[in-house]
Amino acid sequence: MGSHNVEPTSMMNPLYPEEFRRQAHLVVDFLADYYSNIEKYPVCSQVKPGYLTKAMPKSAPLQPEPIETILQDVQKHIIPGITHWQSPGFFGYFQSNGSTGNFLGEMLLTGFNTVGFNWLASPAATELEMVVMEWLLKLLQLPKSFSFSSDGGGVIHGSTCESFVCTLIAAREKKLSQSRVERDDLGKLVVYCSDQTHFSLQKACQVVGISPNNIRSIRTRRSMNFQLSPKALLMAIESDVKAGLIPLYICLTVGTTPTTAVDPLLTLSDIAKRFHMWAHVDAAYAGSACICPEFRHFLNGVEGVDSFSFNPHKWFLTTLDCCCLWVKERIDLTKALSNDPELLKNKASDTKKVVDYKDWQIALSRRFRAMKLWMVIRSYGVTGLQEVIRKHVKLAKYFEALLFADNKFEVVVPRNFAMVCFRVSPLALATVANDSSNEDSNRLTQTLLESLNGSGVVYMTHAVIEGVYVIRVAIGSTLIEEKHVSMLWDMVQEYASNLLANFNNIK
Amino acid sequence: MGSHNVEPTSMMNPLYPEEFRRQAHLVVDFLADYYSNIEKYPVCSQVKPGYLTKAMPKSAPLQPEPIETILQDVQKHIIPGITHWQSPGFFGYFQSNGSTGNFLGEMLLTGFNTVGFNWLASPAATELEMVVMEWLLKLLQLPKSFSFSSDGGGVIHGSTCESFVCTLIAAREKKLSQSRVERDDLGKLVVYCSDQTHFSLQKACQVVGISPNNIRSIRTRRSMNFQLSPKALLMAIESDVKAGLIPLYICLTVGTTPTTAVDPLLTLSDIAKRFHMWAHVDAAYAGSACICPEFRHFLNGVEGVDSFSFNPHKWFLTTLDCCCLWVKERIDLTKALSNDPELLKNKASDTKKVVDYKDWQIALSRRFRAMKLWMVIRSYGVTGLQEVIRKHVKLAKYFEALLFADNKFEVVVPRNFAMVCFRVSPLALATVANDSSNEDSNRLTQTLLESLNGSGVVYMTHAVIEGVYVIRVAIGSTLIEEKHVSMLWDMVQEYASNLLANFNNIK
Repeated sequence: MGSHNVEPTSMMNPLYPEEFRRQAHLVVDFLADYYSNIEKYPVCSQVKPGYLTKAMPKSAPLQPEPIETILQDVQKHIIPGITHWQSPGFFGYFQSNGSTGNFLGEMLLTGFNTVGFNWLASPAATELEMVVMEWLLKLLQLPKSFSFSSDGGGVIHGSTCESFVCTLIAAREKKLSQSRVERDDLGKLVVYCSDQTHFSLQKACQVVGISPNNIRSIRTRRSMNFQLSPKALLMAIESDVKAGLIPLYICLTVGTTPTTAVDPLLTLSDIAKRFHMWAHVDAAYAGSACICPEFRHFLNGVEGVDSFSFNPHKWFLTTLDCCCLWVKERIDLTKALSNDPELLKNKASDTKKVVDYKDWQIALSRRFRAMKLWMVIRSYGVTGLQEVIRKHVKLAKYFEALLFADNKFEVVVPRNFAMVCFRVSPLALATVANDSSNEDSNRLTQTLLESLNGSGVVYMTHAVIEGVYVIRVAIGSTLIEEKHVSMLWDMVQEYASNLLANFNNIK
Repeated sequence: MGSHNVEPTSMMNPLYPEEFRRQAHLVVDFLADYYSNIEKYPVCSQVKPGYLTKAMPKSAPLQPEPIETILQDVQKHIIPGITHWQSPGFFGYFQSNGSTGNFLGEMLLTGFNTVGFNWLASPAATELEMVVMEWLLKLLQLPKSFSFSSDGGGVIHGSTCESFVCTLIAAREKKLSQSRVERDDLGKLVVYCSDQTHFSLQKACQVVGISPNNIRSIRTRRSMNFQLSPKALLMAIESDVKAGLIPLYICLTVGTTPTTAVDPLLTLSDIAKRFHMWAHVDAAYAGSACICPEFRHFLNGVEGVDSFSFNPHKWFLTTLDCCCLWVKERIDLTKALSNDPELLKNKASDTKKVVDYKDWQIALSRRFRAMKLWMVIRSYGVTGLQEVIRKHVKLAKYFEALLFADNKFEVVVPRNFAMVCFRVSPLALATVANDSSNEDSNRLTQTLLESLNGSGVVYMTHAVIEGVYVIRVAIGSTLIEEKHVSMLWDMVQEYASNLLANFNNIK
């Protein structure tokens, strides 16, 4: 940053093609090198709060800076502060696994930078999204009622929370229009889910104005593999109806965040129908697996619900942001979310024969996200995408088998997909401890997680289920190979053995 | 697409660095060529509805396809269906002007693909966002009360609508906690704006559950340059209060969408304060101009409001999606939007010393959008960014001067920034027509717009203000130069002269 005043000289056009070419090539090489070296960085960033604020100037630079200087700063200041979600040592949360095909799609959509709020604003953006959503519908064997060829249709949202918000509003407006529910009764609407449902549902309810008192988070049990119990749901609904409340919406989950539990869709959606509720299936993580025939049974019963969403930005080689939502009655969504301002009036929309996606989402503007999904599907094909899912599931099975064979560990819930939940076995603890409790086991497992993450070589996160602290191992980084799981296993064994050997000292 | 069954052969890792490098270089060259050739394409796509659905296979390809084949399809099928927002002939809506710096930022953020919902999930993503938002706060000379160093702070949202939703909820929850307003009174909350306010506010109200009956869209007048009148606002509020309703929120605009009108912030925010309302300033388009001292006066009075947003994805060389929001009391936002699930518990968040941006927005997941803003600001510097703004304003002045000097045209509202609203002058029409009305003038101007757009060389959109149909010329494409404005002027003159000469035949 120059501190002396200089008259600005006229700069090159910021989209001058030859300079675009030169600089973009530099960044391609920078990123290819990043992927080559990714295992050299600590998976979870080890910086302290405020590290970057201290390193950066307090004001924006007055003069342009060369890309070479900026890339040096990315290497020096940004990379140490990144938690490397693309590292093969990343087993945290759920993966968000990128790919070359996705990257090319992001390049193209950013390069075109169309703002496709309606068909006319960029026909290709709207139509490619419809094409890709129909491809995915077939791949997932979703019911035909979700297709544009029936009364349904699909849209790409930015997040599951946005899909929750939009379907909640659609359900609310439908309820207002169909029954004797008035706007003054909005405080009586009730939303149902399980205590394993993603917390974004609570946020979505908060956004649309459902009172926190009217969210029924129904307790699940380990003995039932953390599935939402139809009996418990029925009791909750009946009690609400008796109290004069109005059941509105239920969220069912295929692959919950804590343990990848799968709710019984058919029975639960039948109950929803009896009470004229909207049923939504959130398959954010596990939906991707269902492109393989051997996992499709987890979606059985999906034909009974009103809407379904999953996130390619988790396990479908696609980066943020990309959440695919289908609805059975597209008119429910567009009635609740459309507006028709003069500025956007055009002959194509007037014919009502085109889709204007602004009426399917919260914002007006939208990125051309279909481009990256299309690039991913074509770059890898159905067989390639299935191969990726199966590879990750196989690695998870392998890791699970190692845990089963070692009595130091307990696999706490059955594995459905490619995520394994384990802890230090209370039995193993009992053999070394003078006395031990569930809290001891929890504390030991938490210490094990913290020391493993502290190594910088791997990164995992945790859940607490029915009072039990578990380490979640989500296998699905694009770059992962068997050697990384073997390495993780070696570390888990070594660190756990040390902790157990020293347990009475630690305690 | 092979239709015969083949055993899938194990494919290369989808992030194998050398293949990533090779393919990404190809796409860089593809896009650089696209920018070189962009003027050869019709600005507004001329395809017919359904063109792409017909051209694409009905199902996803089974086998991977080479990037070379896919890029051929992009050229053949996608580009004809794109409305070229990056073309120097694009004068529609408001521009969304990309740049090389922005593109590199998008490459890096997609390459890292961090999911920065809280500080720990990627410290650099959170901290760079804070740094950049403080840089922009200074650049715009926003009041210190909006800074992280006071009780405020800034966040990057995906859209203005998201900023509306989040500030509406913050206002609602604040109202619930501070006064004698109960949840049952939510139906009494009223939102104020003008009839020029962006229609996304209506959508946001619909999302958070404000009744359409409780949105006061106050009429503006051409004689007042379409500004929101303090007197009319006061009357509307007093009438609502008398009726037992509760004023909640007002949206003021700096640079409205139809005509770039600027509401008087100081007087209006004083009224908002008297009634304990939340005042938000939407400067989506014009905010960027205010980094130049000569435009900063349009923000005078911003110190009186509760929140302020503008969209770098319009006029700040940044692509979708990027909307910057500042609030005066960050606790209002986080109280309304935070949740604290077990899965995300971590020591950094426990200290309350870090920012967890999940509590500042709708979704949980978030892209590392700060990266592209940081790249833009560093690549061009403050002087470069100001130079871009001034160039576009100068070109708009030039076009406006040409219109003023030709009595065929009327500049309908004074130009504030780089958007010019004009129509065929009713006086010019009177000289050629046997008889003519305002409707004739509207129809002629609309025909002029349609024939200009039909040329494929330029693209503009329209507004209807106080019954007058105007052509909006938004100057701000990154690639624009003086020659493109001269060309536009030549076409406008030629097409208008022809239409006028044939008016009595057409009519």
